[in-house]
Amino acid sequence: MSNRIAPLSGYPEYTPAGRIVEQRVVDMLRETFELHGFAPIQTRAVEPLDQLARKGEITKEVYVVRRLHAAEDATDELGLHYDLTVPFARYVLENAGRLAFPFRRYQIQPCWRGERPQEGRYREFWQADIDIVGQGALAPHHDAEVVLVMLEVLERLHDDLGLPSVVMHANNRLLAQGFYGDLGVADPLAVIQAVDKLPKIGPDGVSAMLAALGLSAGQIDAVLALASIATPDEAFIERVRALGVSNETLETGLHELAGLMERVAARFPGRIVADLAIARGLDYYTGSVFEVVMPDYPSLGTIAAGGRYDSLASDGRQTYPGVGISFGITRVLAPLIAKGTLGATRPVPSAVLVAVDAEETRGTADGVAAALRARGVACEVSPNAAAYGKQIRVADRRGIPFVWFGGQSGQVKDIRSGAQVDADAATWEPPAGDARPRVVVA
Amino acid sequence: MSNRIAPLSGYPEYTPAGRIVEQRVVDMLRETFELHGFAPIQTRAVEPLDQLARKGEITKEVYVVRRLHAAEDATDELGLHYDLTVPFARYVLENAGRLAFPFRRYQIQPCWRGERPQEGRYREFWQADIDIVGQGALAPHHDAEVVLVMLEVLERLHDDLGLPSVVMHANNRLLAQGFYGDLGVADPLAVIQAVDKLPKIGPDGVSAMLAALGLSAGQIDAVLALASIATPDEAFIERVRALGVSNETLETGLHELAGLMERVAARFPGRIVADLAIARGLDYYTGSVFEVVMPDYPSLGTIAAGGRYDSLASDGRQTYPGVGISFGITRVLAPLIAKGTLGATRPVPSAVLVAVDAEETRGTADGVAAALRARGVACEVSPNAAAYGKQIRVADRRGIPFVWFGGQSGQVKDIRSGAQVDADAATWEPPAGDARPRVVVA
Repeated sequence: MSNRIAPLSGYPEYTPAGRIVEQRVVDMLRETFELHGFAPIQTRAVEPLDQLARKGEITKEVYVVRRLHAAEDATDELGLHYDLTVPFARYVLENAGRLAFPFRRYQIQPCWRGERPQEGRYREFWQADIDIVGQGALAPHHDAEVVLVMLEVLERLHDDLGLPSVVMHANNRLLAQGFYGDLGVADPLAVIQAVDKLPKIGPDGVSAMLAALGLSAGQIDAVLALASIATPDEAFIERVRALGVSNETLETGLHELAGLMERVAARFPGRIVADLAIARGLDYYTGSVFEVVMPDYPSLGTIAAGGRYDSLASDGRQTYPGVGISFGITRVLAPLIAKGTLGATRPVPSAVLVAVDAEETRGTADGVAAALRARGVACEVSPNAAAYGKQIRVADRRGIPFVWFGGQSGQVKDIRSGAQVDADAATWEPPAGDARPRVVVA
Repeated sequence: MSNRIAPLSGYPEYTPAGRIVEQRVVDMLRETFELHGFAPIQTRAVEPLDQLARKGEITKEVYVVRRLHAAEDATDELGLHYDLTVPFARYVLENAGRLAFPFRRYQIQPCWRGERPQEGRYREFWQADIDIVGQGALAPHHDAEVVLVMLEVLERLHDDLGLPSVVMHANNRLLAQGFYGDLGVADPLAVIQAVDKLPKIGPDGVSAMLAALGLSAGQIDAVLALASIATPDEAFIERVRALGVSNETLETGLHELAGLMERVAARFPGRIVADLAIARGLDYYTGSVFEVVMPDYPSLGTIAAGGRYDSLASDGRQTYPGVGISFGITRVLAPLIAKGTLGATRPVPSAVLVAVDAEETRGTADGVAAALRARGVACEVSPNAAAYGKQIRVADRRGIPFVWFGGQSGQVKDIRSGAQVDADAATWEPPAGDARPRVVVA
């Protein structure tokens, strides 16, 4: 095989210790989602290119996939999915007859985007999505449900694995749409997309964008006044009312956001803010919108986001409204693992290295290992029958904490402390903290 | 979003029940590999195109990946990996300074090949690979080790999940090379690759290929005589000796294969055959070669394969010899799931649907659900507050076996039997068999 080594910018890869961190995070996501009744699905990596279009336009970031010698005019062009929403929408339509609605699914897979690589932005990145999708209709209480599930797992990742703590910013599109409508704004979605740029370009930049859209100075002031409202409770309602605007759409938005805040803040106080600057650039959101940040790591940007959509997909007869949130696993983990902030207690599953006296008695060591494994103790047999001191160094180099000497009834040494005790392979167990590699924070 | 539905031939996708089967299989692979001290790694989906070359030639089956508007003459062309060996070889070279050798890793990921789709052949397919790789040298006992680990997990998949039973066919390249060398064959690898075609084109077809390579009728007879030897024990040695050929390479091959057979047959009698027709087409194998089949499902073909290679990779200073086996997860599961041979007891994780009396008391149901989840009971709260009969039908349609009525101290109904009993959300548990969906054989 070739001997060319080619690290690729934007395609993070981990050493085994880093992969162990990622696995634990994925396990915790999966466990929490399943406790809440979300069913697992996986979709293929590719979609027909026209499925990957946004508003009819295929973005430059899409990776096209083609067989090496495919004809230039091949019509079945495929692209790698850039999120898990587009493939999920297609999956729901394709399987609608076999799914029970409301359909609750989680999906944890890599996505690909040909963006310029930078911290938190990768060309290959794992996402974990949950969505609840109805057929024809979906009750509003599911908005708070997906928020609570995502905050629950992010709390667990913080408490149990030491990931940074989070704050969710929530808004409601109806609130902004009603407000902008009352202002007499012609294209509310364009205004929403301009407001979405606030964190990047600031109020002056957004003012200029809004002016270019034809908004008057008074309209621009009102839009920025609305976007400046952020409260950890329902106080946002009074502040919106103080702006002197009122209509039915706005009231519906205020009511939905207040209901969400009440339910979520009761369970996770301090973890949610009603933030009327939250816009989300995507055109398909029609109600609640969410963005999650890690305040201690602002450079990571938005680490999870989502919202309510009236029509995830439509097959012409039925529409499928839903609500969902996507967590950017790689966006969070790749920088923290690369910096050494998150690591594992050891880079191998093995808790024990079983020493070998001589190649002729390797079978004895195999028997000890089999007895340990039968009770769930991960172990490996020494690759050689060198002097014990050398075999201990093998364990040390691999990060394995215990070395076993002798047969089933033998001795086990903790190579960190040097303590060596008699042990029976049919009963001995490592301390719980050493059973498997653990995630540790530097 | 677009409403076009496009199933793609060769890209299998499962319903949630099918994905539950696949998850259980992957969990069991991972658990077994980790018990044996194999560390997890994942590699990116893409490699530089020249890395994907075989003998300098890039096969037509490779999928090229390119940004939509990339320049035609872009030099950083990438392709999707078609196996996990090529990326692993690159990973070892790239990380050699940070890995402890012998390095033991497992890797479970999708691969892509633009083959003509047919049963057991897919364009996107999951593989599970284990390899043990040394730096400079690797002891021969690792050959039997990877075989034992793979057979152990295949036995567990058979015993615990009901997958079909397997038989491994083993051979050794040195045996064939020594034998062919003694026959005076000019290009032993070409002969090995012809013999590899035996199952497909039969002895007559292979004879014709060998004749085209310039072999005499006597040489062809000898090659086919060697390939006809298959014994469940070490009897193959006598049958090879009866062919009247002997040299050092052949003897080494006989000795290595006999050692492997002895160790493996002792642990898994009936699961291994010394089969001198096993060749493997790939040029990088240099000793042991393995192929695993499911005798009750011959149409699935080879479901796992691997062998020993003297040089997985080389960085010019060091070579990295190794031994490994790859299991074709999708090749086995996709046909068995599609036919309904393998399924799950239910398509959702939830064991319980918590009924809602009225939207105003949804909080009570949320509390019951939280109490159940705190003890690991997967559940979901009813999407509506309809009449109890309708909520029971929601559970029935979703395959959820239990419905909870009332508050923390309430009643739980097994909707299959109709039995309803008092229960406390702080203590009640479903029967172990209902806790999570289980894999079932039709």
